[in-house]
Amino acid sequence: MADEIQKKQGTLIIIGGHEDRDPSGERMILKEVARRIRGGKLVLATVASHSPEGYFDDYEKGFADLEIGNLVELYVEDRTEASDRKKLDAIDDASGIFFSGGDQLRITSQIGDTGVEAKVRALYERGGVIAGTSAGASAMSDTMLVRGTSSETHRIGDLHMAPGLGLIRDVIIDQHFAERGRFGRLLGAVAHNPRVLGIGIDEDTAAVVEGDELYVIGSGAVYVVDGEHVSHSNVAEARPERVLSMHDVRVHVLGTGDGFNIAKRRPIPSRQGS
Amino acid sequence: MADEIQKKQGTLIIIGGHEDRDPSGERMILKEVARRIRGGKLVLATVASHSPEGYFDDYEKGFADLEIGNLVELYVEDRTEASDRKKLDAIDDASGIFFSGGDQLRITSQIGDTGVEAKVRALYERGGVIAGTSAGASAMSDTMLVRGTSSETHRIGDLHMAPGLGLIRDVIIDQHFAERGRFGRLLGAVAHNPRVLGIGIDEDTAAVVEGDELYVIGSGAVYVVDGEHVSHSNVAEARPERVLSMHDVRVHVLGTGDGFNIAKRRPIPSRQGS
Repeated sequence: MADEIQKKQGTLIIIGGHEDRDPSGERMILKEVARRIRGGKLVLATVASHSPEGYFDDYEKGFADLEIGNLVELYVEDRTEASDRKKLDAIDDASGIFFSGGDQLRITSQIGDTGVEAKVRALYERGGVIAGTSAGASAMSDTMLVRGTSSETHRIGDLHMAPGLGLIRDVIIDQHFAERGRFGRLLGAVAHNPRVLGIGIDEDTAAVVEGDELYVIGSGAVYVVDGEHVSHSNVAEARPERVLSMHDVRVHVLGTGDGFNIAKRRPIPSRQGS
Repeated sequence: MADEIQKKQGTLIIIGGHEDRDPSGERMILKEVARRIRGGKLVLATVASHSPEGYFDDYEKGFADLEIGNLVELYVEDRTEASDRKKLDAIDDASGIFFSGGDQLRITSQIGDTGVEAKVRALYERGGVIAGTSAGASAMSDTMLVRGTSSETHRIGDLHMAPGLGLIRDVIIDQHFAERGRFGRLLGAVAHNPRVLGIGIDEDTAAVVEGDELYVIGSGAVYVVDGEHVSHSNVAEARPERVLSMHDVRVHVLGTGDGFNIAKRRPIPSRQGS
């Protein structure tokens, strides 16, 4: 798996939702996207939303004075449109694609195994930028979190997962993390298979992934939940209404500037800021 | 410190708030309190509240059909009352005391270093039950959490602690834990001094402590945050508005029936339920 990640040449910018887009604000994350687009074309994919009106205007304002060549919208009303030649062509000369928020199941059900998905993968493999916020963040992993109660301790039966886009392997991503009290459900997801590393991303915060490494930008934190040394969990034995019991979980809280090696499951000391 | 804990003979029932008190409900925690009071007298200390009206009626109904000899209220309007002979006498023949919710600073500022506090300690040392919910839970440790933002990643400067009643040493307690998204602030508290074990208790859930051991009852979970192996934290270096960065925290999620040895910092396998 690690080999597979390393072969890929692009950058993932995985955003926890509500990134600052105010033209007078700091916009740390939009600036990072723009910096990596380097004057090229950015496709704003609003496919996660049932009512995408307003998204494009909002991002257009947010990116207006940043170095982006042009910003174009990609919306897929239904699955047949995801093979539409004009939509595919729109991705061909892009430097990056940005998946806005909504419902992660809309992303995978509308574009999974279509021409659009193939183009996104090709863009990533030729070194492009794949950014996603909220639902667009969740959809990036091979298995994605679809539903689960926030602000509650995780109950065994209360978590729904589904196959994601698979742009990043062996992790499971959650967003709006501290804001919506989602530590419990991410622990639950990791309990299902400690092979996956849980990555919880706060609002206005992003994990920027290149190869095996990620680093953190933005105003919040990224939480890494590592189940490798878990000595006990009841996820397979207990009745669905029982709460999760799980011992010896390792957690890293990463602030802006902190780095993490996903394959080695270790923080990267040299990136540690104070 | 472990020696000091072991010398004590009583039981602490530390409750995360909103314990079921509905006479037709399960009332797991009230039943545990009643079971340990064994028909004796229980003092309901409403001192944490600025307006204690209604608390007594509520608990009286909740305990009505349970084996409690009698339930009496103890309220301390101001500090001088905490040396009042009648109030002190009320604790003398009690089998337990139950601190209801409100503001933990009201508990310590009204009864700290008074006759009432001495009587509570004496009750504990002669084997009595000291229960506390919400603010009443927070006040039990030697250092208590007073204020800190919920549902946000912890920022260095955003946490207020104060000296608690010191009935349990070397831990710091937080309540309404998953429900209010308080993982971030408990991590922050532990970062200040990994000597203390962070104990986060969900609503309608309690940690029952006897000697060095606790076990869990109720419908939620108890989270133990162990900073012993933390390899990096920025709590002392960073500017107050920076988010916490903290690597290699160990976390245990304990469900009902799970046990934990506080002195050894280990889950107790024999108590593990499924």
